[in-house]
Amino acid sequence: MERIYVKSLQEQLGQEVLLKGWVHRIHDLGRITFVMLRDKTGLVQLVLEESQKEGLRLEAAVEVKGICQANDKAPLGLEVAVAAIAIVGKPDYEVLPIAVNREEQVHLETKLDHRTISLRQPKTRAPFVVQQAIVEAFRQYLTANHFSEIHTPKILSAGTEGGSEMFTVKYFDTRAFLAQSPQFYKQMMVGAGFERVFEIGHAYRAELHNTWRHLNEYVSLDVEMGFIESEEDIMALEEGFMRFLMPYLQEHCQAELELLGVTLPAVGTIPRLPLAEAQEILQEKYGKASPPGNLDAEGEKLLSAYIQETYDTDFVFITRYPTAKRPVYTMPFEDDPTVTRSFDLLLNGLEITTGGQRIHDYQHLVSNMKAFDLNPEDFAFYTESFRYGMPPHGGLAIGLERLTMKLCGLTNIREATLLPRDMKRLTP
Amino acid sequence: MERIYVKSLQEQLGQEVLLKGWVHRIHDLGRITFVMLRDKTGLVQLVLEESQKEGLRLEAAVEVKGICQANDKAPLGLEVAVAAIAIVGKPDYEVLPIAVNREEQVHLETKLDHRTISLRQPKTRAPFVVQQAIVEAFRQYLTANHFSEIHTPKILSAGTEGGSEMFTVKYFDTRAFLAQSPQFYKQMMVGAGFERVFEIGHAYRAELHNTWRHLNEYVSLDVEMGFIESEEDIMALEEGFMRFLMPYLQEHCQAELELLGVTLPAVGTIPRLPLAEAQEILQEKYGKASPPGNLDAEGEKLLSAYIQETYDTDFVFITRYPTAKRPVYTMPFEDDPTVTRSFDLLLNGLEITTGGQRIHDYQHLVSNMKAFDLNPEDFAFYTESFRYGMPPHGGLAIGLERLTMKLCGLTNIREATLLPRDMKRLTP
Repeated sequence: MERIYVKSLQEQLGQEVLLKGWVHRIHDLGRITFVMLRDKTGLVQLVLEESQKEGLRLEAAVEVKGICQANDKAPLGLEVAVAAIAIVGKPDYEVLPIAVNREEQVHLETKLDHRTISLRQPKTRAPFVVQQAIVEAFRQYLTANHFSEIHTPKILSAGTEGGSEMFTVKYFDTRAFLAQSPQFYKQMMVGAGFERVFEIGHAYRAELHNTWRHLNEYVSLDVEMGFIESEEDIMALEEGFMRFLMPYLQEHCQAELELLGVTLPAVGTIPRLPLAEAQEILQEKYGKASPPGNLDAEGEKLLSAYIQETYDTDFVFITRYPTAKRPVYTMPFEDDPTVTRSFDLLLNGLEITTGGQRIHDYQHLVSNMKAFDLNPEDFAFYTESFRYGMPPHGGLAIGLERLTMKLCGLTNIREATLLPRDMKRLTP
Repeated sequence: MERIYVKSLQEQLGQEVLLKGWVHRIHDLGRITFVMLRDKTGLVQLVLEESQKEGLRLEAAVEVKGICQANDKAPLGLEVAVAAIAIVGKPDYEVLPIAVNREEQVHLETKLDHRTISLRQPKTRAPFVVQQAIVEAFRQYLTANHFSEIHTPKILSAGTEGGSEMFTVKYFDTRAFLAQSPQFYKQMMVGAGFERVFEIGHAYRAELHNTWRHLNEYVSLDVEMGFIESEEDIMALEEGFMRFLMPYLQEHCQAELELLGVTLPAVGTIPRLPLAEAQEILQEKYGKASPPGNLDAEGEKLLSAYIQETYDTDFVFITRYPTAKRPVYTMPFEDDPTVTRSFDLLLNGLEITTGGQRIHDYQHLVSNMKAFDLNPEDFAFYTESFRYGMPPHGGLAIGLERLTMKLCGLTNIREATLLPRDMKRLTP
């Protein structure tokens, strides 16, 4: 007999069904007992006779056979009159560490400590349904635009983003690093003939930040695109993705978005605002000073408010970051090499993307490395690729958890991560 | 003007087109020059006048405008009469380290050293087109079967597969490990209410094997499925995937499979052969002794020959591995706890999958850990999940590079990896 998901029960009225799931709630009335059964797709009311309730506890994993029948008073307008119920996963607890069937104030750290239980709460699990849909949409959009999916190493002999924020690995007899990004490799794969590539993979930052928006291991949605005219092509690509994503989520995650009580952001036409202008606006309109060559978290928030008032969108591209603030591979403007063809994308006050055009000329790259006090020899495996006809190219990286957090209205990035890794957390 | 890919030129006959790609071959006849242009999708002949060939070198990245016209003698039955050509990615080499436009005997290590160049060879790049299609088919098949895609941490506080073959990471002030598999986490996510999950992610093995079939970093196609009857459900799932995969590849990668000169394996009905029987067959038919509780590489090869003769398939499931040879979480048979509900899948003499049913009862798992001389306390983050109603479950892991290698008829797993990591290779 085929197992039926709760979501599909409506089509089974009057039929015998096989259900599988967990005991979400028990309401014992003596002669009959109402049990809410929870599966991956939803909740349904079971009606049990006295003899069938033996041994039932909250969160037991059960298999149920019964007749699906209409009942206006039941949550879905239907219920299942149980013919047989079997406990297939026996609980072995004294007290549940977290309630699954009601909302209670629980510290986030407690929810993360008992992740298998907290994720059983439909509302806690909902962001991950949205997250999966984001990833699906990302793939669909890029594949339709001739991008190839790649998988590149996360154990490296040299860093990609510069700086010391790298985790070290003992790799046999040598020391290696965990990838901060697939930056070098995605560029190399553009040059290797794939032209347009994307990767959905982990990135590692040994940053000493333990905040609501930082993770030390995260999923990066990476894109790199060859034969572009300028960084404007990359921004257009991302804007196109956001326009594709929102209706996709609306269609595929309606129930989860409702459960989370969120409205998706407006994409509209995303303004492209040079950093210097953004800083001026903050100064003039809000009296807010910004750090040199950047916006701080407060500035990002204020600016987003300004953008929402002024334009028909919740997004803004900040462009033309100073050369000194961007990595060595970033393309400077020809007419002003102190600023770069780079951008960040902010969504409602949070940076969710960094991108830009890259240097593609071999001599230019090598001389820029020297200007950055790097030894090109240390990066020969990377620079070699630029000697054989590297087309103009650029790309971007979206932090999957950050995007999920913003779209789901969460306040801490750990809620958008199944099993987060931060400075203090290596388990579960 | 919109860029046209070579693959779509047939629809552009008589039109002006914009092409982008690399100079694959130059045939200079003086007044006219034929150039083969290579893009991501194929090769096309360009016809240049004398003035247009200036500065052209092999592998330069170019943008070309011209008229697409019929020519029976040209490879695609068409060519492009160039109106304008611009070098957008200038080469800066003396000699190409590897020829791109002809087959030559090059050592694999040389091809891996110069990966950006060797991958420009369409035949070297073809396995990755197949690889991407494998991943797509895997996702499509599982998503259609109600599986959720997950992303789990690769930095762990404890090993999952036992043994010492783990890379260590300095994680702030503590020592951590790179994940050998997402085993614990995919089980936990089944229990967390996802019921059915898959992950496409890196796995790390610090094995001291430097062979044609080992990588120290590889992509694992992981599946875990809750509410199963037994390990037979998992084998049925994988058999279904293989039946889905072959026509999918035939449809999406026909050109690449032809270029590689391979025929896809027959799936048919995959026999499920207990290990002890397999060892007997090897002994009786080939006089081949096997190591206790396993097959060796030669045994796997001989057995595959036997399977192909006896059945209508290139695959075989080897089942009922001894308890002592499988990890602690493997479910033993009730009637004979010395053997387990586990399996390997062999394709033409190579193990491409390990799978089985897992222990789901908390007390059973804890006592098995003790029997394996493990301290359950060390795995509390994992065992805790089993206290709240863990359904019967099982899963499998397919080595993506191994499957790609077999389907593409490659002889070394490094040819199925963009940028392999092995004992001796950390670059490029």
